[in-house]
Amino acid sequence: MQEKGNISIHTENIFPIIKKFLYSDHEIFLRELVSNAVDATQKLKSLGQLGEFKGELGELKVKVSVDKEARTITISDRGLGMTAEEIKKYINQIAFSGATEFVEKYKEKDAAAKDQIIGQFGLGFYSAFMVADNVEIFSKSYKEETEGAHWICDGSTEFTLETTDKTDRGTDVVLHVAADSDEFLEPARLRTILTKYCKFLPIEIEFEDAVINQTQPIWVKQPSELTDEDYTTFYQELYPFSEPPLFWIHLNVDYPFNLTGILYFPKVKDELQFQRNKIQLYSRQVFITDEVKDVVPEFLMLLHGVIDSPDIPLNVSRSFLQADAAVKKINTYITKKVADKLAELFRKDRSGFEEKWSDIGMFVKYGMLSADDKFYDKAKDFVLVQNTAGKYFTLSEYQEFVQANQKDKAEQTVVLYTTDAEAQHSFVQAALDRGYDVLKLDTVLDSHFIGQLEQKLEKVTFKRVDADTIGKLIEKDETIESVLSDDDKTKLQELFAKAIGNEHMHVQVEALSPQDAPVIITVPEFMRRMKDMQRAGGGGGMQMFGSLPDSYTVSVNANHPVAQRVLSATDEASHQLARQAFDLALLAQGMLKGEALTAFVKRSADLLTA
Amino acid sequence: MQEKGNISIHTENIFPIIKKFLYSDHEIFLRELVSNAVDATQKLKSLGQLGEFKGELGELKVKVSVDKEARTITISDRGLGMTAEEIKKYINQIAFSGATEFVEKYKEKDAAAKDQIIGQFGLGFYSAFMVADNVEIFSKSYKEETEGAHWICDGSTEFTLETTDKTDRGTDVVLHVAADSDEFLEPARLRTILTKYCKFLPIEIEFEDAVINQTQPIWVKQPSELTDEDYTTFYQELYPFSEPPLFWIHLNVDYPFNLTGILYFPKVKDELQFQRNKIQLYSRQVFITDEVKDVVPEFLMLLHGVIDSPDIPLNVSRSFLQADAAVKKINTYITKKVADKLAELFRKDRSGFEEKWSDIGMFVKYGMLSADDKFYDKAKDFVLVQNTAGKYFTLSEYQEFVQANQKDKAEQTVVLYTTDAEAQHSFVQAALDRGYDVLKLDTVLDSHFIGQLEQKLEKVTFKRVDADTIGKLIEKDETIESVLSDDDKTKLQELFAKAIGNEHMHVQVEALSPQDAPVIITVPEFMRRMKDMQRAGGGGGMQMFGSLPDSYTVSVNANHPVAQRVLSATDEASHQLARQAFDLALLAQGMLKGEALTAFVKRSADLLTA
Repeated sequence: MQEKGNISIHTENIFPIIKKFLYSDHEIFLRELVSNAVDATQKLKSLGQLGEFKGELGELKVKVSVDKEARTITISDRGLGMTAEEIKKYINQIAFSGATEFVEKYKEKDAAAKDQIIGQFGLGFYSAFMVADNVEIFSKSYKEETEGAHWICDGSTEFTLETTDKTDRGTDVVLHVAADSDEFLEPARLRTILTKYCKFLPIEIEFEDAVINQTQPIWVKQPSELTDEDYTTFYQELYPFSEPPLFWIHLNVDYPFNLTGILYFPKVKDELQFQRNKIQLYSRQVFITDEVKDVVPEFLMLLHGVIDSPDIPLNVSRSFLQADAAVKKINTYITKKVADKLAELFRKDRSGFEEKWSDIGMFVKYGMLSADDKFYDKAKDFVLVQNTAGKYFTLSEYQEFVQANQKDKAEQTVVLYTTDAEAQHSFVQAALDRGYDVLKLDTVLDSHFIGQLEQKLEKVTFKRVDADTIGKLIEKDETIESVLSDDDKTKLQELFAKAIGNEHMHVQVEALSPQDAPVIITVPEFMRRMKDMQRAGGGGGMQMFGSLPDSYTVSVNANHPVAQRVLSATDEASHQLARQAFDLALLAQGMLKGEALTAFVKRSADLLTA
Repeated sequence: MQEKGNISIHTENIFPIIKKFLYSDHEIFLRELVSNAVDATQKLKSLGQLGEFKGELGELKVKVSVDKEARTITISDRGLGMTAEEIKKYINQIAFSGATEFVEKYKEKDAAAKDQIIGQFGLGFYSAFMVADNVEIFSKSYKEETEGAHWICDGSTEFTLETTDKTDRGTDVVLHVAADSDEFLEPARLRTILTKYCKFLPIEIEFEDAVINQTQPIWVKQPSELTDEDYTTFYQELYPFSEPPLFWIHLNVDYPFNLTGILYFPKVKDELQFQRNKIQLYSRQVFITDEVKDVVPEFLMLLHGVIDSPDIPLNVSRSFLQADAAVKKINTYITKKVADKLAELFRKDRSGFEEKWSDIGMFVKYGMLSADDKFYDKAKDFVLVQNTAGKYFTLSEYQEFVQANQKDKAEQTVVLYTTDAEAQHSFVQAALDRGYDVLKLDTVLDSHFIGQLEQKLEKVTFKRVDADTIGKLIEKDETIESVLSDDDKTKLQELFAKAIGNEHMHVQVEALSPQDAPVIITVPEFMRRMKDMQRAGGGGGMQMFGSLPDSYTVSVNANHPVAQRVLSATDEASHQLARQAFDLALLAQGMLKGEALTAFVKRSADLLTA
C-alpha cells in the first residue's frame, strides 16, 4: 500500500491561533484594515497610471468612523473594490495574499508598484475578529458593469454573500464590536491608535472630519529637497517638547536592500536620562514598532528618528532577527553612515563638533568599544579627549602635545587622567604644578575606553593622577635627595605605621619636595583597575580579588618639616602629629569619614579657640 | 443572489507562517517532539490503568539519538503508536489536536488523565520542519492486528504514506536535518536543549545511553513527603554554585486554577547583583520560559525557583497575559502565599527572621509599595526597621520605643533617620548624645517607604538627622538662652554671611550648647525630599524645581567660644576664623571638596609646624 495526499488545515482550529498568536496587540486590527484600504487605493492609482483604469479617480481618501450607539466601526475606501467573485477569492481563503498576486501580475509593467503595496491582505483582514463578533463587507468593484457585493461573517468559518445596491466604487468594512472590546468604540482611543500607526500613510486618512496623517513624510523625500528647518520641524513632530537635535543623518539606500529614514542625535542632558526605544520602525510608511533592537546597532539605540524598510522581516522572533542576513546588512550600513557623518562634521566644523562633544562622545566611545573594527578605524581620527583646562584634542594631537614632557625613562608616553577632577583636586593640582597635563576621563565608559586605547596605541600608558606620588607618576632619571639619614627614615616609617595602625596602608618614606604635603595617600594603578572592574561586575574570574581589601600606599615626605618634628617630639606629641598629618592625607583622598571625621572636626574646632 | 459557504485556508500559505511565527526559537522543535512522545506514552499508561490496554507496558523510555553522518535526529517512544488511518487523521490535518480528542473521550472515566496530556499534537509536530527538510514517521499502534505505517513529507504540503514492517509498538520520528541547521547535529547542542526543556518530564528520556531527566521533581510531591535537604538539594540543581537559599515556599493549589511550584528567597549579596529571570515556568513539567513577568508579581521577580501550571496561557503576547484573568488570580495567590510565609517565619522564629532581614527587607518593602493593600496590611506587622545600634523593631514596637522621648510639642512622634550613618556621623552622634534614637533607612527604596509610612501611620513624621540643628530637630517647649545681645547676633550673622559669600547658604545665629559645633550646616527636610525625588527622575511636574539650587541652612552657634572671638577679633582674623569654622561645618556635611578642600588641607598642614 502506498498513497500520496495533501496535508490540510482544519480551519476551525487554526482560526483561534490566527486571532491569538499572530498579533501581540488587539489594537493592531485598525492598522491592518486601514492598510488594506490604503493598499486598495494605491492599486487603483497604479492601474490608472498604467492605463488599465480609465475612469475618474476622484478624491481617494480613506475614511474611518465610529458609531457608539450602533457599536460599529467603519473603514471606507474608494479604491479597487471587489466583486463577489473576488471576495470569495481574497477574503474567504485565508492567507491568500492579494498583494502578492497583484505584484506578480504587474511586476513587468511597473516595478515601482511593488513598493506601494502594503501588507498581506489575506491574514490582516482577519485581525478584525480580535475586536468584532460580526464583520460585514460592502464592496463595489472599479470594473464596469459589476454588481455590489455584501459579505457577512460572525467569526465562525461560515459566511454569507449577497448582492447589494452599493453604487460608488470602493469597499466599506463594518465591524460590529464585541462586548469585550468596548474600548474601541471610544473616539479618543481610535484617534490614539490611528495616530500611532497611520500618521505617515501615503493616502489621506480622515477621522472625525479631519485628516490625521501626512502622506509625504520627509524621509521619503530627497535630502536635496529639504531644509534644516524641515528636519527640526519633523523632529518636533516626532518628539514634542524635546530640545532640538544636535544633527541628523538622512538614510537612503536602494541596494542591496531598501531603507530610508532619518536618525537624529539628541542632546543628552544626563547619562541617566538616556531613553531607548526612541527610534520608530516603519514598513512602507506603516508604523510597526519602536523596539528596534537588532535592527539598529546597540550603540545607536539611543538615537532618535525613523527607519522605514520593507526588507525588515516583521512579527518574527528576536532570535530570528539576529540571524537575518538583511538585518545584519542594515546594521552595517547604519554604522557606516553614522561614522561617515561624524567624520564629515569633524572635518567641516571642528569647533561645532567640539561644542557637541559632550553629547556625542558617549555614542562614539560606545561604538568604538562595541561595533566592528571598521567603526574604530574611522572614529579614532575624530574621537576627542578633553583636559582639565577644557581644551579638546584628537588622539594624535594629544600624543603630540604631551610626548615631550610626559615620556618616562622607558620611552612610554604616560597619559595622566582624573576620573573626578573635584575629588582628586589636590593630585590634579600637583600634576599641573609639575608641568604635566591631565585628561578628564570621567564617564562610565572611560575605563573601558582607556583599556582599548592602551591596546591600540603604541607606547602609551594611562595613569590616574593619584596612582603615585608626583615624582614617580612618570618615572624619570632624577631623584630628590633626602635630608634624613637611613636610620631616621626607618624610625619615621615605624612611627607612622604605628600611628596609622592599618595593615592595608603600606607606609613608605620618600624624599619629596618640602612644598609637597607631609603625607600623601596613593592608589596603585593596576590594583585600582582590578577593583574597579570587579565592582562593575565584569571580568570572568575576577572573583579571586573578592576578598582583597583596597590597597593604598602612604608616602611620608622625608623633606617636609613635619617629618623632622615627628622624629624629635615626645612619644605622645609625635603620635598625635603623625596621626593628624595622616588624617589630612585621608581628607585629600576623600577617605576621612564617619567617626574619624567627626573627631577630626571636633579637634580642629577646639583648636580654633585654643 | 445569496450564498453561504465556508472560509478555507490555503495550506501552502499558512505553512510558512506556522514555521516562522509560532515559535520564537528553532530549538523548540525538540521540546515539541519529545513532549509528543511523552504524551503518547502517558496516554498508553492511562489506557492500561483504565483496562483498555491489556498488553505489556514494558520499559516506557523515550529515546533521542543523533547520527551526524546520516544527518538525522530520531525521537522514539513506546507509547500508543499510530495506524496509517490515525496518521492521516492526526498528522495530515494540521491543528487537529489529538490530545483534545483523547481528553474528550476519556474525561468521564478518568479526570486525572487530563493533567497528563501534554501539548497540542497537531501544531507542535510541524515545528520539525523548522530544522528538517524531510521528516519520516515510523509507527506501530498498540492495537492488535494493525500494520506498521511509514509517513514521509519533504516540507511541502504533499506526503507519502505506506505500510512498513515495524513490529514493536510506538513511534519513531526521524528528522533529516536541513543544511542550514547543522548546529542541531551536534550532540552537545542537543544535550543542552534537552536539559533546558525536558529536565523534569514525567517519562524517562534517554540520550547517549543516559537518562537526562528527573521524572518526579520535588514540586510535584507533597510538602509532607519532603525534607529541608530535599529543597536545598533541588535548589543546587537549579542554580549550581549558588549560596543556599534563605527559605522557600511550596506552592500547591488546585482551585480555581492549577499551580504547583517552589519559590526560593535567595541570599542577596548586593543590591546591584539582583538577577531577574531566575524563576522557571513549566507547563506539566515541560520547561516553557524563564520570563515570568506578569505571571509573578513584580516585587517577587527577584525570587528563584519553579512554577508549573497548565493554566497559564503560553506563547501569547505580553499584553494578553496582563489581561488574562487566570494570570491575575495566580498573581494574587502567590502574593498571599508569600505574605503568609513571611508572617509565619516572623512569628515562629523572630531571631532567625532578623538575621535574614538584610536579604528579605528589600522584597517586603518593595511589596508594600507596589503590591495590593492586602500585602501591606499583612506586612505592616512584620516589616522591620533597624536603628544605628543594630537593634530591630517592628513598626509598632518602634513607635512605642521612641514616643516618650521623641514627641514634639504638636504631639507628633518624630522618627529620626540617617541615609548614610558614616557620612552623617556627626549628626547621628549629636542625636544620640541628646538621647534620641536614629533609624538606618539607607536602601534605594527607603525614601518611598518613608513616604508610605507617613501616609499610613497616624501622627508620625520622619526627619533626617541633618534636617535641623539638634535643638530644633524635634521641637519642644524649651529654649537655650543666648549669651549674645541681639546687636551682637546681627553683627555675627553679617560677619559669617560675608565670610561665606554664598547666597544659597542661609546664615542664622542660634543659641546652641557650647559643646555643639561652632557652625552647623543643615538641609531642610522638605526641600531635600523634593530634590531627591527630582534626582530619582520621578514625580510628574517636578521639573519646576529644576532650576532651584540645593538649599542649606548655616547655623552659627552663638554660645560657642568661636562666636565671641569672631566678634572681637580684627577684621582679617575674624574673617579667617569664620571661614575656617564654616569649612569645618562643610567638612562634617561632606561638602568641602575640590580646590577648597585642597586649600584647607594645605593650610592645616602648614599649621602643624607653625
